[in-house]
Amino acid sequence: MGKSTLYASPRLLVGLNAFEPGQSHTLHAHAGMDKVYQVIEGEGLFLLEGQELPMRAGDLLVAPAGVPHGVRNSSSGRLLVLAILAPAP
Amino acid sequence: MGKSTLYASPRLLVGLNAFEPGQSHTLHAHAGMDKVYQVIEGEGLFLLEGQELPMRAGDLLVAPAGVPHGVRNSSSGRLLVLAILAPAP
Repeated sequence: MGKSTLYASPRLLVGLNAFEPGQSHTLHAHAGMDKVYQVIEGEGLFLLEGQELPMRAGDLLVAPAGVPHGVRNSSSGRLLVLAILAPAP
Repeated sequence: MGKSTLYASPRLLVGLNAFEPGQSHTLHAHAGMDKVYQVIEGEGLFLLEGQELPMRAGDLLVAPAGVPHGVRNSSSGRLLVLAILAPAP
């Protein structure tokens, strides 16, 4: 999985995550930190608590602090995701 | 200008701002709070420090804490902007 940081401060991290077909970010949670996912390009499955949510370009999802979340690129193309964390890790 | 809150916590506010043609958000700054703008639909001028930046759908801009910023819809259509503040106001 490729990662790039667009902006970082103590308050906020804005990054791009690129998942090739089959790549994933397994279920995890952040204590005291909210995460916003927005699909920029492609499509994939987003995990939030017990759910698998198919998402594609333009779709946005918030994983509030402490809520388990993850991503799986189940498609045949690249999945490009904007990931925003507040506060920054 | 129309505003809608998509998500709010003490750490993060995710909102949508709709600017009709001619509407604007004058230059202002937030102490201790970063703001991410992303154009969802349409186009407009984004002000950041002394600059006027034309932006359109897909473009993203960060106004770090304390840096004056604003928006002006100089186009003939609606400008829809995702605005993320961290921490929340």
